[in-house]
Amino acid sequence: MPTVTRPLRLAVVGAGPASWIGGMHRRAAHLDGCWHVVAGVFSSRAERAASAAVAVGVDAARGYSDVATMLAAEAGRTDGIEAVAIMSPNDTHYACAAAALEAGLDVIGDKPVSTTADEARDLAARTSALGRIFCVTHGYSAYPMTRHARQLVADGVIGPVRFVQVEYIQSGLAKPIERGTMTESQRWKFDASRSGLALVFSAIGCHAQHLACNVSGLAIEAVSADVGALMPGRTVVDTVLANLRLTGGVRGQYTVTQAAAGGENDIRLRILGERGLIEWSHRHSAYLQLNLEGESARTIGRGDVGLPADIAKLSRTPRGHPEGLLEAFANLYREAAEAIHARNAGAPLAQVSFPTIDDGVHSMDFIEACIASHTASGLWTKV
Amino acid sequence: MPTVTRPLRLAVVGAGPASWIGGMHRRAAHLDGCWHVVAGVFSSRAERAASAAVAVGVDAARGYSDVATMLAAEAGRTDGIEAVAIMSPNDTHYACAAAALEAGLDVIGDKPVSTTADEARDLAARTSALGRIFCVTHGYSAYPMTRHARQLVADGVIGPVRFVQVEYIQSGLAKPIERGTMTESQRWKFDASRSGLALVFSAIGCHAQHLACNVSGLAIEAVSADVGALMPGRTVVDTVLANLRLTGGVRGQYTVTQAAAGGENDIRLRILGERGLIEWSHRHSAYLQLNLEGESARTIGRGDVGLPADIAKLSRTPRGHPEGLLEAFANLYREAAEAIHARNAGAPLAQVSFPTIDDGVHSMDFIEACIASHTASGLWTKV
Amino acid sequence: MPTVTRPLRLAVVGAGPASWIGGMHRRAAHLDGCWHVVAGVFSSRAERAASAAVAVGVDAARGYSDVATMLAAEAGRTDGIEAVAIMSPNDTHYACAAAALEAGLDVIGDKPVSTTADEARDLAARTSALGRIFCVTHGYSAYPMTRHARQLVADGVIGPVRFVQVEYIQSGLAKPIERGTMTESQRWKFDASRSGLALVFSAIGCHAQHLACNVSGLAIEAVSADVGALMPGRTVVDTVLANLRLTGGVRGQYTVTQAAAGGENDIRLRILGERGLIEWSHRHSAYLQLNLEGESARTIGRGDVGLPADIAKLSRTPRGHPEGLLEAFANLYREAAEAIHARNAGAPLAQVSFPTIDDGVHSMDFIEACIASHTASGLWTKV
Amino acid sequence: MPTVTRPLRLAVVGAGPASWIGGMHRRAAHLDGCWHVVAGVFSSRAERAASAAVAVGVDAARGYSDVATMLAAEAGRTDGIEAVAIMSPNDTHYACAAAALEAGLDVIGDKPVSTTADEARDLAARTSALGRIFCVTHGYSAYPMTRHARQLVADGVIGPVRFVQVEYIQSGLAKPIERGTMTESQRWKFDASRSGLALVFSAIGCHAQHLACNVSGLAIEAVSADVGALMPGRTVVDTVLANLRLTGGVRGQYTVTQAAAGGENDIRLRILGERGLIEWSHRHSAYLQLNLEGESARTIGRGDVGLPADIAKLSRTPRGHPEGLLEAFANLYREAAEAIHARNAGAPLAQVSFPTIDDGVHSMDFIEACIASHTASGLWTKV
Repeated sequence: MPTVTRPLRLAVVGAGPASWIGGMHRRAAHLDGCWHVVAGVFSSRAERAASAAVAVGVDAARGYSDVATMLAAEAGRTDGIEAVAIMSPNDTHYACAAAALEAGLDVIGDKPVSTTADEARDLAARTSALGRIFCVTHGYSAYPMTRHARQLVADGVIGPVRFVQVEYIQSGLAKPIERGTMTESQRWKFDASRSGLALVFSAIGCHAQHLACNVSGLAIEAVSADVGALMPGRTVVDTVLANLRLTGGVRGQYTVTQAAAGGENDIRLRILGERGLIEWSHRHSAYLQLNLEGESARTIGRGDVGLPADIAKLSRTPRGHPEGLLEAFANLYREAAEAIHARNAGAPLAQVSFPTIDDGVHSMDFIEACIASHTASGLWTKV
Repeated sequence: MPTVTRPLRLAVVGAGPASWIGGMHRRAAHLDGCWHVVAGVFSSRAERAASAAVAVGVDAARGYSDVATMLAAEAGRTDGIEAVAIMSPNDTHYACAAAALEAGLDVIGDKPVSTTADEARDLAARTSALGRIFCVTHGYSAYPMTRHARQLVADGVIGPVRFVQVEYIQSGLAKPIERGTMTESQRWKFDASRSGLALVFSAIGCHAQHLACNVSGLAIEAVSADVGALMPGRTVVDTVLANLRLTGGVRGQYTVTQAAAGGENDIRLRILGERGLIEWSHRHSAYLQLNLEGESARTIGRGDVGLPADIAKLSRTPRGHPEGLLEAFANLYREAAEAIHARNAGAPLAQVSFPTIDDGVHSMDFIEACIASHTASGLWTKV
Repeated sequence: MPTVTRPLRLAVVGAGPASWIGGMHRRAAHLDGCWHVVAGVFSSRAERAASAAVAVGVDAARGYSDVATMLAAEAGRTDGIEAVAIMSPNDTHYACAAAALEAGLDVIGDKPVSTTADEARDLAARTSALGRIFCVTHGYSAYPMTRHARQLVADGVIGPVRFVQVEYIQSGLAKPIERGTMTESQRWKFDASRSGLALVFSAIGCHAQHLACNVSGLAIEAVSADVGALMPGRTVVDTVLANLRLTGGVRGQYTVTQAAAGGENDIRLRILGERGLIEWSHRHSAYLQLNLEGESARTIGRGDVGLPADIAKLSRTPRGHPEGLLEAFANLYREAAEAIHARNAGAPLAQVSFPTIDDGVHSMDFIEACIASHTASGLWTKV
Repeated sequence: MPTVTRPLRLAVVGAGPASWIGGMHRRAAHLDGCWHVVAGVFSSRAERAASAAVAVGVDAARGYSDVATMLAAEAGRTDGIEAVAIMSPNDTHYACAAAALEAGLDVIGDKPVSTTADEARDLAARTSALGRIFCVTHGYSAYPMTRHARQLVADGVIGPVRFVQVEYIQSGLAKPIERGTMTESQRWKFDASRSGLALVFSAIGCHAQHLACNVSGLAIEAVSADVGALMPGRTVVDTVLANLRLTGGVRGQYTVTQAAAGGENDIRLRILGERGLIEWSHRHSAYLQLNLEGESARTIGRGDVGLPADIAKLSRTPRGHPEGLLEAFANLYREAAEAIHARNAGAPLAQVSFPTIDDGVHSMDFIEACIASHTASGLWTKV
């Protein structure tokens, strides 16, 4: 593991003091001392941007009101930013990331990386051409136990994979929000031109798709999908249901809805192999179910003795003491910092553990295929 | 509730001493004293039929070696059988049921009721024309808590239904049984001409479909399905995956496989309504999850105070003392007996709680539509 | 395993049609065809006794109104009863069992076996002297998974036992029943002269104590106890709490209350050994937790492949299909029948799996010691 | 809620880079921006102290090698420390806290606060006399759901409390560590003169006792206890078992062991009231079970709609996204900072939510009473 010798200087875009995801990114960046948030775009109004900066511990002068100004101003400082973390509205992701890459910065991007697959592909091309690091913050894939699941599958513990099932249900859109007075954040979400191809996919669905692909080690090759809204009269997409074909013809099933009244934020993943199955549920994020045919079911815990070193290092507290999503996010921030230091030190680009812009491209390809299949009455459609 | 005044005389077909499902039927029939197993077809070899009869507590003379002989012999007795319970191989169900109905008997039929939808429709027509009772033993729909779930949905507790999700995974076909030496029971199952359109559907899939329809109170109107085998090289169907449209356009998702290495016999049902959701899992068959949006999650138990009387009467043991599938089966046997006594007493045919031949027809229509959709590359297909 | 060649003829005492525990005994006796309930004492009023007999499928003539009459009458029949199952009020157990033993009959006795340790010892002496079988129906100790837990402990899987913890909480006495109008059944329970030394112990506490001793394979040697009532003003005992010393100085802890408002019927057992622990909870009676230090936690299920044959035979339904307390009771009835047939066939008395009158003696010794310790301000007291 | 206007300057004692509890304190202090760790005693060797300081982001010059030096040096700075957080070995807690209080500083003290009740009382007297804030870091009592449990009990939701049950089992001492080569940290723990009256109590037992008292709102008035070691030959205490009497005669039971091979870090709390019970398990720290007699069981979640504002503010992430022990610790740090700012602003000392030195006194009184009761053969002993 490359050492993190000093905190990297980070700017945040869209992480005002009232944003929970903003707080998540800022805390995660600081948790292990790998990053220092020193600048950011917090509001389009200069005054507000400055006061928001101070509220989150950034100098007022480095609280910018737009990305271009920030990139220019920071480029002129000897202690200027080295990377940008993006968590502004979905329709701004692409432009912001492209500008940051072009400015020679690395990117921590919240999902979705863009609003179309073409844009995502463009970001991937720039990232590669410019030798940048692009980390997409799929936090659920960075829990010690989802990482361990991936390892167990890769090691063949459950045999060849035969079926991949993922489900993410949430109550975020369970009420007819669009019929009432909306907050600014709700307004852009319910404007399909800003929130992207499928609201539910931008919001939570890409997390589920990434988790399934990441843990199974497989890509989605074709879909037969049902895309729409459970809520009557809704014009944005709150639900995506799909049958899948993954690499090598492996079957899969995909269930995502934000219109689950009474749901919490429930993610379930199951990978069926020829010899057994692995199950993980977000409700019990620190545990992993491993059921091998003919053996008693096993529950592997985050703090179990004998976990591989690269899984054990993802934990900061001992066996039986709960960790949260914050620590999973911090794992991504730490890994991104390590990759950047290594790259800066001249090391050749190694395989990374965190999701990259290539994962972002696959997500956008997937949702475009789902929509195409739905339009074609459920017909199997290539991703 | 009509009273069960005396045990009805029952013949069992295919319930030899070594058959677990046979034992289940015999024990369930006797549990409440509503039935008395007095005859049966236990083997095609006369000697074995007689000894098997004795082993299960039936007179050797009434251990028959074929259905026709039994029906004829019993018709000649003053204490002859009044109903036939069928749990022989799938491809014999239709003929046996049809013969029993024609002999003026009522039928308790294990699933699937037939091998085609046409046959099922024929049985439904005979049942109706002959004024018979035909109870299909979908035991999972007869637990107190699945019944209560149905009631809660019908009462609108979760609001209008928006999404129905059912899953049944099992390890029964997780190994390549067909590549080894098979038992007689396995041989007919792996012979698609005998086990029916889709092995997994005959074995477990129709239970899941019935449970989803029964609890939601909805019928399946269209499917977009993926039908096949997870096990490479397998020629029978071990997996059915489908997106659904139910009555009124309600969305659904269906997941059934017997090739789940490491699976147990796991059934999960979730009904999403506009105000909340209901979940039931076979692992916790005595409990029901009711999560209403904006309220704390509730776990309703089989023994809770204040359950409606028609749910409470489905239990035989107090709060916190486990019951099993046997008691659920016995609920069906008791309800069927009550319906028969009522009919015999001249009462008009009332709404019954147990699954009937009409449910059997819907199951066969559903699987035929799944296969048609699969053949049409996932295209939405009317049921 | 000795074969059960024919059903044994059983009389039930206190198993009227309205008694749930009566129904449990009758169904359990019949479940495997090992017993046939042919007589019983159902009421002290002759007319009621006869009608109750009929209601439970017994000839009116063999529905007796007192035990002495029954024993005399049945002794005169060639098809007379061979054993008596006792589930009448607690204060009648001793006399009824003693009379049955003296009449040369075997006994299935519900708990507690008597109201004092001396009485229990007297029954043990008679049982032994007369060569009878005396099975005490501690059903919780007869689940496949509590039996398997016992086996695992005995096999040393968790190493030498260091700590035994058992808890049984229930809401049966959570309300101030004694301040209202009581049913007949409640009246004898709240009369300490009839319900025994400690109501909660007679009702549920002896089950918990037996389970702990049975699974750990240890006897209780000393106690430091707190005995009393959680309900203010209550004069009967609804709660027993104790620190324990078991065979060889092993520590233990015991928690029993029926005044647990909001409780269900929750039994938890945990055995700590030097290498790991075993946990069992009644809520998940078909599963057993086995956590060995340094290994992933294992959940052993009732239907797991590879269970020892003598555990597997305690199940009647396959993996993943729930069984209940009825099947556990039926295990006791089957084992008692096997022991009786073996004894009748002249076999020397072997080690039996079911609880015997010796277990009943230990239970009564234990509760007497608890009361003595409580009276002595918690002082450690020999059992 | 008093506002935290600027980060307070904190010194940490015993929080070197390799200490997990040190990392917990440092991260928790920083999480909400309420504190800034600017100094510390990291090693008794000056060189190591300086390098350790740098490793945790503190100036080398403020990495001290003993407490006295630090207090003197910091007193001379205009930006000197305002509080000390203590997480050094147990036998140093008292002296360090006393010195910090006398230096006019506030104290965040890890448990146990001292090695005797007299010392704890002395700290309480100083804290009060000097007008200081003393926060004891019982993190388990600072989860949103343990706090909410306390509120529900205080609000009478379960009626008058009748029984309090707490259990904390862990595998930290499951192996015969003292028979092998020990680390420095293990050496002081196995030296009873340094680790305190009862090792298991210092390590985890006081957390369980505090949780039980805190949530029930009751103090422990008397105990009947069994204190010793499950591990044969062990001379330090690894287990404390006790029957309790709490304020008003309420019964309780207490179970603590670190010799639980196969245990994780399992804390269970149950409060029985006259109308229902509350249960909380550390395994599911974000949920609370509320079972009211006669109603369906309710699971209250950290993110439930409608939680009181002072509970809701203890969360930083939305419904269904896990938080960990870190956030609970950060709640204590934030509350301590708020109390300090309020006190500094001249506000009269209000009721605080975090554990104080008075709680520390009660813990030490409790364990001294347990040991006295054990010595007196289990006799009930006043606390």
